Amino acid sequence: MNDFQLDKRLQNDCILLQECNEYLLLLMNNSLVPWFILVPKTTVKELYELPAPLRQIVESKIDLFSRFILQQFEMSKINVAAIGNVVSQLHIHVIGRSPSDFCWPDVVWGRPERKPYKPNEIELIKQRVCESLNLK
Amino acid sequence: MNDFQLDKRLQNDCILLQECNEYLLLLMNNSLVPWFILVPKTTVKELYELPAPLRQIVESKIDLFSRFILQQFEMSKINVAAIGNVVSQLHIHVIGRSPSDFCWPDVVWGRPERKPYKPNEIELIKQRVCESLNLK
Repeated sequence: MNDFQLDKRLQNDCILLQECNEYLLLLMNNSLVPWFILVPKTTVKELYELPAPLRQIVESKIDLFSRFILQQFEMSKINVAAIGNVVSQLHIHVIGRSPSDFCWPDVVWGRPERKPYKPNEIELIKQRVCESLNLK
Repeated sequence: MNDFQLDKRLQNDCILLQECNEYLLLLMNNSLVPWFILVPKTTVKELYELPAPLRQIVESKIDLFSRFILQQFEMSKINVAAIGNVVSQLHIHVIGRSPSDFCWPDVVWGRPERKPYKPNEIELIKQRVCESLNLK
């Protein structure tokens, strides 16, 4: 993973919640929906190119974050996507959605609406992530 | 899988390419991009709820269709997504994208542009799917 560096746009748009050996967990700095992004430490750009062990970790974390979002944010739907048309670095969106959110049922990508988190909100989410996901 | 029935909206918008015991493979009837949809035969609505064996099949098919699209349609990027805000039946989009396509780099969901396939184009894609994917 020596060549791995987090894309500058993801750096700017997101808050780093957790870093492990295999991936970074980011929070999109937009409190309109709970929008997490998983960035596997790899230089491949498509899901199918991931080596099997890392793919397995990615899938299990997608599931873990999906459950976490549904439990912690009173959301009713999860949107999972690997797109990468703008930022080519492989990253997987795991987003909580609800019929009462700002753009339901449309997808969130490409929408201009933003509401950055306040520092105490970020701390609260970091705490929830640590407690609930038991990530190191 | 006795309770499984393909959602009416997917039925109307898509062409059935293949049916196996575990899933349906659909083609969105919009030739602007190669847009495949995998519908696992299940009544759960989220990826994380899939039983492990079916989840494994779904992941391996996502990979298979991703490679197929890149090889057969001269696309440079794959968009993979499980959204389900409009059609709640679990279905996974596997879409070929390219900087020269109709809405690059935007996502395709929610776009109004449509160009239905001609019958001979559908036949050609069915043939390619059969030959390349060796699906039964």
